[in-house]
Amino acid sequence: MDVSERLAGKTAAADFDSPEHQARLAALYRDFEAAGMTPLWRTREDLMPFHPQPRAVPHLWRWAQLYPLAARSAELVPVGRGGERRAIGLSNPGLPGDPYATPTLWAAIQYLAPRESAPEHRHTQSAFRFVLEGEGVWTVVDGDPVAMRRGDLLLTPGWCFHGHQNVSDTAMAWLDGLDIPLVATLDQGFFEFGPDQLRDASTPDRSRSERLWGSPGLVPVSAAGRPHRASPLMAYRWAHTDAALRAQLDLDAEGHPGVLAPGHAAVRFTNPATGADALPTIRTQMHRLRAGTVTPPARTTASSVWQVFSGAGSVTLDGHAHQLEHGDIFAAPSWCELRLHAATDLDLFTFSDAPVIEKLGLLRIA
Amino acid sequence: MDVSERLAGKTAAADFDSPEHQARLAALYRDFEAAGMTPLWRTREDLMPFHPQPRAVPHLWRWAQLYPLAARSAELVPVGRGGERRAIGLSNPGLPGDPYATPTLWAAIQYLAPRESAPEHRHTQSAFRFVLEGEGVWTVVDGDPVAMRRGDLLLTPGWCFHGHQNVSDTAMAWLDGLDIPLVATLDQGFFEFGPDQLRDASTPDRSRSERLWGSPGLVPVSAAGRPHRASPLMAYRWAHTDAALRAQLDLDAEGHPGVLAPGHAAVRFTNPATGADALPTIRTQMHRLRAGTVTPPARTTASSVWQVFSGAGSVTLDGHAHQLEHGDIFAAPSWCELRLHAATDLDLFTFSDAPVIEKLGLLRIA
Amino acid sequence: MDVSERLAGKTAAADFDSPEHQARLAALYRDFEAAGMTPLWRTREDLMPFHPQPRAVPHLWRWAQLYPLAARSAELVPVGRGGERRAIGLSNPGLPGDPYATPTLWAAIQYLAPRESAPEHRHTQSAFRFVLEGEGVWTVVDGDPVAMRRGDLLLTPGWCFHGHQNVSDTAMAWLDGLDIPLVATLDQGFFEFGPDQLRDASTPDRSRSERLWGSPGLVPVSAAGRPHRASPLMAYRWAHTDAALRAQLDLDAEGHPGVLAPGHAAVRFTNPATGADALPTIRTQMHRLRAGTVTPPARTTASSVWQVFSGAGSVTLDGHAHQLEHGDIFAAPSWCELRLHAATDLDLFTFSDAPVIEKLGLLRIA
Amino acid sequence: MDVSERLAGKTAAADFDSPEHQARLAALYRDFEAAGMTPLWRTREDLMPFHPQPRAVPHLWRWAQLYPLAARSAELVPVGRGGERRAIGLSNPGLPGDPYATPTLWAAIQYLAPRESAPEHRHTQSAFRFVLEGEGVWTVVDGDPVAMRRGDLLLTPGWCFHGHQNVSDTAMAWLDGLDIPLVATLDQGFFEFGPDQLRDASTPDRSRSERLWGSPGLVPVSAAGRPHRASPLMAYRWAHTDAALRAQLDLDAEGHPGVLAPGHAAVRFTNPATGADALPTIRTQMHRLRAGTVTPPARTTASSVWQVFSGAGSVTLDGHAHQLEHGDIFAAPSWCELRLHAATDLDLFTFSDAPVIEKLGLLRIA
Repeated sequence: MDVSERLAGKTAAADFDSPEHQARLAALYRDFEAAGMTPLWRTREDLMPFHPQPRAVPHLWRWAQLYPLAARSAELVPVGRGGERRAIGLSNPGLPGDPYATPTLWAAIQYLAPRESAPEHRHTQSAFRFVLEGEGVWTVVDGDPVAMRRGDLLLTPGWCFHGHQNVSDTAMAWLDGLDIPLVATLDQGFFEFGPDQLRDASTPDRSRSERLWGSPGLVPVSAAGRPHRASPLMAYRWAHTDAALRAQLDLDAEGHPGVLAPGHAAVRFTNPATGADALPTIRTQMHRLRAGTVTPPARTTASSVWQVFSGAGSVTLDGHAHQLEHGDIFAAPSWCELRLHAATDLDLFTFSDAPVIEKLGLLRIA
Repeated sequence: MDVSERLAGKTAAADFDSPEHQARLAALYRDFEAAGMTPLWRTREDLMPFHPQPRAVPHLWRWAQLYPLAARSAELVPVGRGGERRAIGLSNPGLPGDPYATPTLWAAIQYLAPRESAPEHRHTQSAFRFVLEGEGVWTVVDGDPVAMRRGDLLLTPGWCFHGHQNVSDTAMAWLDGLDIPLVATLDQGFFEFGPDQLRDASTPDRSRSERLWGSPGLVPVSAAGRPHRASPLMAYRWAHTDAALRAQLDLDAEGHPGVLAPGHAAVRFTNPATGADALPTIRTQMHRLRAGTVTPPARTTASSVWQVFSGAGSVTLDGHAHQLEHGDIFAAPSWCELRLHAATDLDLFTFSDAPVIEKLGLLRIA
Repeated sequence: MDVSERLAGKTAAADFDSPEHQARLAALYRDFEAAGMTPLWRTREDLMPFHPQPRAVPHLWRWAQLYPLAARSAELVPVGRGGERRAIGLSNPGLPGDPYATPTLWAAIQYLAPRESAPEHRHTQSAFRFVLEGEGVWTVVDGDPVAMRRGDLLLTPGWCFHGHQNVSDTAMAWLDGLDIPLVATLDQGFFEFGPDQLRDASTPDRSRSERLWGSPGLVPVSAAGRPHRASPLMAYRWAHTDAALRAQLDLDAEGHPGVLAPGHAAVRFTNPATGADALPTIRTQMHRLRAGTVTPPARTTASSVWQVFSGAGSVTLDGHAHQLEHGDIFAAPSWCELRLHAATDLDLFTFSDAPVIEKLGLLRIA
Repeated sequence: MDVSERLAGKTAAADFDSPEHQARLAALYRDFEAAGMTPLWRTREDLMPFHPQPRAVPHLWRWAQLYPLAARSAELVPVGRGGERRAIGLSNPGLPGDPYATPTLWAAIQYLAPRESAPEHRHTQSAFRFVLEGEGVWTVVDGDPVAMRRGDLLLTPGWCFHGHQNVSDTAMAWLDGLDIPLVATLDQGFFEFGPDQLRDASTPDRSRSERLWGSPGLVPVSAAGRPHRASPLMAYRWAHTDAALRAQLDLDAEGHPGVLAPGHAAVRFTNPATGADALPTIRTQMHRLRAGTVTPPARTTASSVWQVFSGAGSVTLDGHAHQLEHGDIFAAPSWCELRLHAATDLDLFTFSDAPVIEKLGLLRIA
């Protein structure tokens, strides 16, 4: 018997526990089901919890385990049309059946063997690549070859054609982030094959997008009037990110504002044409904690994925501590309490669905 | 063997079909699974379809079936704290287990017996009520009693306390619309009980929100500087909606613009402080088709729910025609082809997730 | 000798007062002038005062004086192509030579004799009419005839064709407000003659714009995606304005929020498609003070013009009190201290350049 | 007799030219004047011209003349409290009495002798400095010392304290641009003295604002939620500007988009937090024309000021050609037809009131 059914005093039906009442109720529920109806009073707590109750759980994947598996797959599975990418998604244990890191975010390790290339395609899903280590791959975004190197963040905004090629004799692996689960839930996915061969196989040091958009605060007048839903800048280079983080910590040491909190620098990758997040559905940030820094416990209703770029330390997720080593990836669902501890200087890349939650007016932070 | 695995010519592994290769592959997939990894090349088509492939299906519920079942439940189940509402959600057959009309929208018939009341609560979910018939119920939104009558649209924006009371001797039923599935998917739900008794049991003809915000184009200067995430106007009265629709068709007949298409009037319920949708996550509209009007087939990536307010006709959803009678409710998933035919003058209320899809830059219309 | 020239101790030129120095200085200033150069150090205080020092002064015009003069002009000057309108602008005494009420606002009394009409034209300047008394005139805005009656606010947004006709046997006069000075200062004025005869001489009770846009919170779906720089609603009717003001005072009396301050109701006329000011460069509001209400002294850097719609009282402008009678018009320049006192219930219409100042990020209120 | 008075046939007053009528009219106009009233029909063409009729005229000032005069003033007039700056404004010959370059823009040459400093102050006016040549001066903006060097654009947004010091043994001159006329017209000016001595006399190579905001697309997370009315980046360095312009022309040569027109590169200085103009009331841009490039004649209703940074050529303003040499400055009023011709590679800095005109919805381009 349900909670509200127990409120017998409130109803004219005096005898709730009578066999006759129970029989009539059972018949009603059968008829509801036949009619495609589900009573709220039997589902309210699941549908409308007192606070977020994610099925997704806090989880950590070890780079030391991910990388060798990705490498093994390169020996067994080619990259080509159909499968499209040698990308292996991280499946949150709380979301069985769906290869999703969180309910909105897909995170994968992508691996490209020496001299291999992945054919062009495009999709409504927004994507980025974050490079933990290595170089030698170019991603071609709408015909513009973009070099991928350690520490870089590379974008492939929704509906841009893109393919990858490894021109080196060394394999390369990186983190792929996409809004596949969000787009799937909302039934917004469109996908289209492009040419099997990259449309521009050149390997310039700087992409055309960087040449046009990569100077701080400078916008081409030819593009100033146009809409820029996603960033027109396809690459955020490590040299800049590193310098910006170092500057924040230096300013902190000099007694000037800039850091997020003492010992904790953080930069957001943004669309230079609007100042908004680089991608409309994914927030991307790089954090740097000075050795010894411990962040206060914090919650947000955005879900996020983090990767250790360099250094070591630990993260406490809903009270459980996890050691953090180079390349480790963890997922923090909505309302998960997160706390970082930097054993050494610690650099972390993170991405989240915060722009989505913000645009819907639902973001809470505690 | 997968699509991309068949591309044997592209890889050094010459003998893809060899038992040894297959064994190694099987071992790899087992290791992937143990490590919480899912290869994209085995899931790509599901994750990233060529066009939206909603699990939700086009579906129609008959008012003639819904209403008697709701009435029966009033004899058997009281309204009270815990269950909170005698609301029965419409479950899309394509989404078994989840009582959702579409992947983002919850639609329910709510039924309040004579002299019954539903206790106050609040939640992050946005809600509205649309009244097919009847009167005698007041919904109290943050202490402001709002009369509910035939044809009215009533709002309860996210995190506003609200309860209902029926002060008449007649039962009343209406359509409830919420973004429960969206908020559930995004793990954004917060919920709080309010007082068991309504904080204002008075039954004014006009709510305070209407007295402040219900004059066309007039905004209280005291509120002009404040944020208005949702509409401050809690009621959109049928007299106004009806007049606006009639005016569009009259102007059409006089040769002036205004209608959506010849013979097809439509108004959107908006936030008078911003001109945006009345609720940040739900679009609400009323359509009126002159008898004989047939709309051209149309698709959108927003999902929607429709209710026949008056008149009769038919709807064709992805090629299947359904007769439409008074009160019938149907769901149109993303990218479903929809076509209306008005046998008589036909009024339809509809709500959708279009504001969400628009804000994320994903809306397509064809 | 200038302020900074007196700072002799700060310079190597020891002998500032020497005749030789003075002669060289005079020569320099002559050469500056010949070269089209003006030193800041001789003009700084004028150019960059410590606080706004408007040339415009607080000023009041008596309706009892304006109306008879306007009527006399009707006997002597016809309305027609070239002069265009029998409108007589109010010239702020602080702005001699420019017929401007404030540096950004033009205010005029327009007078149309029985059966007279004013030909169509259009201009980039935004305009409105506020009707103190009378009826019988229709203003035709882009072909849409809009009735003008007591208490109504009528818009003619920039670049809309418009003309007026008086179909009655009684003369009618009203207040015209435009951003002529602003547009003149910024050199943005374009002007075009339309037909000599109004393109639609009909006299409907309700304009087409009201039929489409005049229902509270309801927006035609056909127009929902389009830009709406100015309000698409051409008329704000007195019945609505009066009801909204009365409701605020009633709510105040009942202990609910809504008024601007105790005893002081105020509504803003807004663009229903955006919630912004009805015109992009002019804020329009109606205020109602309960008899006996005295407003606290207030300053804003927006300049404004006010007209007494009904009732009596007084206004204190920078410390000088002026009695207020029916129809009286006063101008309050930037940073003028303004205080209202309602002897009876007092209704005041006001317009200002606040949207301009806000958009430029310069508005201050004290 | 006025245009509309000539339309005798339209009025009952049959005898317009009669002495009696003329006498009555003269009396009316006297009474109008006494009452502070100005009839539109006698002023309409001035108030509301068919197209912009700026009083400001196209004008060119020669750097070869400006610089020696500024240098002479340094021998005669010290910099100090009261005069505040050794800045000499360029007075448009069409605006006698007002030392304005255009109706909205103030342009000046500012000159700081060796080891001289200018005291701190702040004002609502927005300001920038553009450096034609030289170095050795630091401008201190809200306590942050910003080096000024050839080709740099430096900001002092409204209401930021700022002072200047020359730490070198060489005088330095630069272009100052402010919205003084706009702020004066709108009566929005506030001004406040700061300390006589700069609050930070250090001379770092990079300002703190550049360290925080000078990496392309990277925003400090600590500042991401705050309003940014003006750019938080105080310096746009020549090395970046030059590289961005060169990249556009290179891309043009390679057959890729990016330039404004063939042979014509242009970058806008923007607020990295919003993508909008660096200052809310002033647009700042740098243009580069390849030798031989001739721009098509163009008009805009924004008024602008231009300075030749390097190279030579000519500008044609409303049909009159002017030779352009290093440092020359010219003003183009609203609707002035402007055409550039590059004799050599030609770099031009320009600033305009376009953001103001755009925000008011008045900008026209032809």
